[in-house]
Amino acid sequence: MSVNIPVVVGVDYGTLSGRAVVVSVADGAQLADAVHEYRHAVVDRTLPDGTTPLPPDWALQVPEDWREVLRIAVPKALALAGVSPDQVVGIGTDFTACTVLPTDAEGTPLCELPGLAGRPHAYPKLWRHHAAQPQADRINALAAELGEPWPARYGGKISSEWQYAKALQLLEEDPGLYAAADRWIEAADWIVWELTGAENRGLSVAGYKGVHQDGHYPDQRFLARLHPDFAGFTAKLDHPLSPPGAAAGTLTARAAALTGLNEGIPVSVGNVDAHVTNAAARALAPGQMLAIMGTSTCHTMNSEVLAEVPGMCGVVRDGIVPGLWGYEAGQSGVGDIFAWAVRTALPEAYAVEARERGLSQHELLTEKAAAQPVGAHGLVALDWHSGNRSTLVDHHLSGLILGLTLDTRPEEIYRSLLEATAFGTRMIIEAFEEAGVPVTEFTVSGGLPKNRFLMQIYSDVLRRPIHVTGSDQGPALGSAIHAAVAAGAYPDITAASAAMGRVNRAVHVPDQARADGYDLLFAEYRELYDHFGRGASGAMHRLRALRDRSRLEGDK
Amino acid sequence: MSVNIPVVVGVDYGTLSGRAVVVSVADGAQLADAVHEYRHAVVDRTLPDGTTPLPPDWALQVPEDWREVLRIAVPKALALAGVSPDQVVGIGTDFTACTVLPTDAEGTPLCELPGLAGRPHAYPKLWRHHAAQPQADRINALAAELGEPWPARYGGKISSEWQYAKALQLLEEDPGLYAAADRWIEAADWIVWELTGAENRGLSVAGYKGVHQDGHYPDQRFLARLHPDFAGFTAKLDHPLSPPGAAAGTLTARAAALTGLNEGIPVSVGNVDAHVTNAAARALAPGQMLAIMGTSTCHTMNSEVLAEVPGMCGVVRDGIVPGLWGYEAGQSGVGDIFAWAVRTALPEAYAVEARERGLSQHELLTEKAAAQPVGAHGLVALDWHSGNRSTLVDHHLSGLILGLTLDTRPEEIYRSLLEATAFGTRMIIEAFEEAGVPVTEFTVSGGLPKNRFLMQIYSDVLRRPIHVTGSDQGPALGSAIHAAVAAGAYPDITAASAAMGRVNRAVHVPDQARADGYDLLFAEYRELYDHFGRGASGAMHRLRALRDRSRLEGDK
Repeated sequence: MSVNIPVVVGVDYGTLSGRAVVVSVADGAQLADAVHEYRHAVVDRTLPDGTTPLPPDWALQVPEDWREVLRIAVPKALALAGVSPDQVVGIGTDFTACTVLPTDAEGTPLCELPGLAGRPHAYPKLWRHHAAQPQADRINALAAELGEPWPARYGGKISSEWQYAKALQLLEEDPGLYAAADRWIEAADWIVWELTGAENRGLSVAGYKGVHQDGHYPDQRFLARLHPDFAGFTAKLDHPLSPPGAAAGTLTARAAALTGLNEGIPVSVGNVDAHVTNAAARALAPGQMLAIMGTSTCHTMNSEVLAEVPGMCGVVRDGIVPGLWGYEAGQSGVGDIFAWAVRTALPEAYAVEARERGLSQHELLTEKAAAQPVGAHGLVALDWHSGNRSTLVDHHLSGLILGLTLDTRPEEIYRSLLEATAFGTRMIIEAFEEAGVPVTEFTVSGGLPKNRFLMQIYSDVLRRPIHVTGSDQGPALGSAIHAAVAAGAYPDITAASAAMGRVNRAVHVPDQARADGYDLLFAEYRELYDHFGRGASGAMHRLRALRDRSRLEGDK
Repeated sequence: MSVNIPVVVGVDYGTLSGRAVVVSVADGAQLADAVHEYRHAVVDRTLPDGTTPLPPDWALQVPEDWREVLRIAVPKALALAGVSPDQVVGIGTDFTACTVLPTDAEGTPLCELPGLAGRPHAYPKLWRHHAAQPQADRINALAAELGEPWPARYGGKISSEWQYAKALQLLEEDPGLYAAADRWIEAADWIVWELTGAENRGLSVAGYKGVHQDGHYPDQRFLARLHPDFAGFTAKLDHPLSPPGAAAGTLTARAAALTGLNEGIPVSVGNVDAHVTNAAARALAPGQMLAIMGTSTCHTMNSEVLAEVPGMCGVVRDGIVPGLWGYEAGQSGVGDIFAWAVRTALPEAYAVEARERGLSQHELLTEKAAAQPVGAHGLVALDWHSGNRSTLVDHHLSGLILGLTLDTRPEEIYRSLLEATAFGTRMIIEAFEEAGVPVTEFTVSGGLPKNRFLMQIYSDVLRRPIHVTGSDQGPALGSAIHAAVAAGAYPDITAASAAMGRVNRAVHVPDQARADGYDLLFAEYRELYDHFGRGASGAMHRLRALRDRSRLEGDK
């Protein structure tokens, strides 16, 4: 079967687990995959010692959990694929981002150094560590005050999740540890260091998470204004940056022993999970937007044009493939809003019906919701339950449902939320196009595209055909494709993607009449979006402030 | 026990049943009550023949069901009270309104005449018959066009539920039957005719439901513009009007035989259920607002001042007691919105918990909701699931919930809806006061005041003590009080109310700190109220129109 054909290994590091796939270099066929769940998952209550408590909004991980993926999932996938190590021509990885850690000069995580295991700041901060918001606020305010050029590349504001905010929190809360951190490195780059034995940094993570633009990081003068000791912070990052698809180095003997692969095979440059998925979905040409749809949605797209798109997460030259501007935008809440609806507005009788019929609760609500014509629920919702990233960059916004009557049923609320996320996507696409960045195609990836009714809504709302990635493991396949490029099997990512990527084109196509109906609902969505999101009403901010104050103070 | 003390009988005709109470004349003590459920309940699908179908929005009743209350419930209450007919000095009744029927000149309902039992328009139209909306719309449009003076007495618009709209529908859809109807009479007056054998009409129903103002009905010229044959309609209503508390006549031998009471006892003038309740609650003095809280809320209050209060249901001279202006206002949805929340946003785990703990689902949600400080849910809702009567008179408005997050729990949604109805009441009270009609006290009656947490919200939101009626049977006690006045036991309703009414004063008192918190939420409510209710955003109307069109057309 797979005997003797050349293969690559892709490893995708998610929030709770890592996944290894073994893929044919010739055509991208996936021969096997294996998942390993992190033993410590997300560390957000106490450190692994079980006693050191963590403040609210903290989220850490344990580097050894990541090594375990190499030690367990990679050999398992190889065994399942029935391939020998001699067939493996390269390995590539991708990671959640910004997940970032302090290390010593040799790349050892500080949390693994003697005496530091009890220091929270010694651990990697997971992307969803949100305790550096005060630092992010100060960075953004100062950047605005000084007229720094780089916020425009990030929709106007950088996130509390990113490298600078998290590092400033480290400095301010544990200065000794800050001083001990020779390096401040993305997990995406750190895992490559583990594989190759030498530090290497990817241009993509540096650009999207490290505010590296036009060849440099924010300058010392700026950093010093944040904190005197922060002036030299960039030294902890500085390193030549490698483009996506390049070889970062080759597998060390130690890493070969760990993974069961051969020493010396090429290792591709570390990258962000979302950004390798474009290769897997054959969505690399300018204007081919990819939406990775799960609990939230990440939109990635290449363009020949550099523009300031309102609320985008970032634009980075060579960020997805060399030679183009790589854009990223996002919707803060998508699948997790649907999960909220199931959790909140699914009555007992529905739960019983779903069980009796062997359907998931989502399937039952979808079936009931799909039976109605467009607009028959009379509802419009704002999908801001966890704020709005693109296009408003405002995490203190909140969700809204309008049009409720005594007849409104749970499936109608559910459907209005499905629709709201499609409207949110349309707002993003229109923001790109209005900024002069054409969006010519729309491809979906991730877990949600399995819901065909949801995808039909997207097609009707966007008035576009929807292409669907053909691989269930988009990021891992993308990493494998990058590995094939690093191994020299293809001249570049685009060529490798054409041969190895997977996409089913126009799986869903818009219906004119339904699209007309959705246009009317979208007009209402846009009115609410503008009214509550752009300053006409400050109700959501005031309610959030009241909520936070009230919860702090307790009942008066 | 009750041997030889004088008593009165009050009979309250509700939507699904009639209730008789036996009450001590001296102090209003309730000696017994008995309920009889209407055999045909609400006739809204087919006529009692079981074959003649009814169009949507129709709601009829069967007069014989009402007689059955006299025949069954009255003697049963007497027996339970252990009183002899000789002790009963009078009987009074109240009815849902506008519930109206066509009769011949002798008061026989047309549906009881030979050959007419299969004609839908021959039956009484229940208050919630909503099929005359087109007629109401035309009446209101023409009144506005011609500058008629009377709409100002009804908050600007009369309801499709009232006498003129329902009669115009009868004329237009079954003109032969319209011609055969010598009389068009409120059930409140018809039941008195049954008891006394002579037509009598109450000033209250004529004023609130028959557009009788300043001594006359709308004029012929106006009616002729609606339909040529409608010009003489008022002749079917015309009759001297009797004030509340007067004696309409005395019990006939036939009615005495039916009820087991003595022939010749006084029967008080027919009245609306809400308007007799003020007497039961000792809320008759100017400025004492009574809120009758159930699926919806009805506000009734006397005043020395005549003013045009935005969106009031009506103001009628002598409408509640002689000598004062009787005001009525209303909230279209209250308890039925809470029921919607239970139906829609109560997950299986909550349903199980309520069962296991022996709580109603409302009790469980209330308990969970009450545990939070004011504003901690971060939500504000509009209680417009069935539109807004006062102050906006707009039944095409709809409900809204704002501030939703992934953490929002069902009890928080429930609480935001409880609060919204309190805010709606505050808008009504403020509208009265801004129009120059002082509201000095606030008393509650009906089923909802049992929820102490809800009442505390009202007290905090209104910054007023809440008085609670001491009788579970407010309308029936009110009718009994009117009967006592008709029997001459008291000089007027106010004196009878003082002796026989029941109220517990200041059961709930406002908490300053919570009231301050609710002020902040109320400010948000008011902003949304104005934005969506007063024309700045037409979103709710457009969504309603889209919904109705979409449901008609089916999926395109």
